Amino acid sequence: MQFGRVIGQVIATQKTGKTTGLRLLIVEGLDESLQSTGKCITSVDTVNARHDDIVLVCSSSSARMTAQTKGVAADNAIVGIVESVSAGKKNSYRR
Amino acid sequence: MQFGRVIGQVIATQKTGKTTGLRLLIVEGLDESLQSTGKCITSVDTVNARHDDIVLVCSSSSARMTAQTKGVAADNAIVGIVESVSAGKKNSYRR
Amino acid sequence: MQFGRVIGQVIATQKTGKTTGLRLLIVEGLDESLQSTGKCITSVDTVNARHDDIVLVCSSSSARMTAQTKGVAADNAIVGIVESVSAGKKNSYRR
Amino acid sequence: MQFGRVIGQVIATQKTGKTTGLRLLIVEGLDESLQSTGKCITSVDTVNARHDDIVLVCSSSSARMTAQTKGVAADNAIVGIVESVSAGKKNSYRR
Amino acid sequence: MQFGRVIGQVIATQKTGKTTGLRLLIVEGLDESLQSTGKCITSVDTVNARHDDIVLVCSSSSARMTAQTKGVAADNAIVGIVESVSAGKKNSYRR
Repeated sequence: MQFGRVIGQVIATQKTGKTTGLRLLIVEGLDESLQSTGKCITSVDTVNARHDDIVLVCSSSSARMTAQTKGVAADNAIVGIVESVSAGKKNSYRR
Repeated sequence: MQFGRVIGQVIATQKTGKTTGLRLLIVEGLDESLQSTGKCITSVDTVNARHDDIVLVCSSSSARMTAQTKGVAADNAIVGIVESVSAGKKNSYRR
Repeated sequence: MQFGRVIGQVIATQKTGKTTGLRLLIVEGLDESLQSTGKCITSVDTVNARHDDIVLVCSSSSARMTAQTKGVAADNAIVGIVESVSAGKKNSYRR
Repeated sequence: MQFGRVIGQVIATQKTGKTTGLRLLIVEGLDESLQSTGKCITSVDTVNARHDDIVLVCSSSSARMTAQTKGVAADNAIVGIVESVSAGKKNSYRR
Repeated sequence: MQFGRVIGQVIATQKTGKTTGLRLLIVEGLDESLQSTGKCITSVDTVNARHDDIVLVCSSSSARMTAQTKGVAADNAIVGIVESVSAGKKNSYRR
């Protein structure tokens, strides 16, 4: 999984692959220090994430392993909201 | 998923993997500001996308989760037409 | 899918994963203008591609969605021969 | 698989995809000489790895092939603790 | 698939995902001219490859399509030993 920050939303029409009704959020990738990687992805939200939330994004076929994304044409999904990150002594985050 | 813009079409013969009859479009990758990433992919169209449409492309095995691509040798597919994008205040798009 | 040009062949022995009997070709990656990307892959041929043919290569689990590659340890496969490419006005190819 | 070093831990709430109860560790990628690649990933732990352990990380759908990650929304998992690495004469590691 | 050269071995303990008993080899990636790409991966051996052998490595879920790797947490596997490579006139290899 990778870290990300919710920065926007996408509205799409004429959707296929059972994506109708799912929220599509724009997530800015973050490294382990929660600094931006400069890359964004469009992700299906399965946790009711809000703007600016630090989230966990799961990619590939594993993105379909949630109740909301089963059988869905989603190549990644937000599967958790990050509460805290502790990496050594210098990097830490608490929501 | 990633954003893309439809810029062309591919005709192929001697196709295998149940791709016969499917439209193959050339999609220019776009970032979250809908600026070109400089990379293009060839994608199966499942939404009747037109030239210049801003679309959502789904990759990997999830590309097979539409009625048209089930069991098909497609490693990515156009699964939606983007209606609007809102990322913070500065980036926005409305079809 | 991505474009490629057939530039060579690989003979392997002691193969596992039901790849015995399948042709393995070396494919030079091409961009949407059919210019070399500088990257080559070894691909299972499912369309009887010939040397110099412009082909479509399908990656990941979708490469197993052909009659020849079902259940085979192939992470990509040639699934079509490109007849024509039209991207805007400047890029076009006809076989 | 790739090598990594456990450098931290992530606590997430509102998790979906059956990830509840699983340990999420931050793993710094290592090359074959066990030097840092500069890239970190968040990985599900299936071997009770400890801080500073050199581990093996498995990606993509294969990450779900353990008892703990079956059907779980995990795109990678720690599946082994490295005991020794021998690459030629110059690179070697013993735990 | 990609080419590689066997350059070392990994011993891991506390393995999960049915990898117990499988040989894990370090494989240096090679391009189509069999020159090093500078990247190594750790791969499950299914062909009894020896040190310095030129091998074919299969990635992603297709790595599980061998008798030895079925249901195993292996994201890539050595599935063949390269006997010869012919790419145009200038690149050729015979074991």
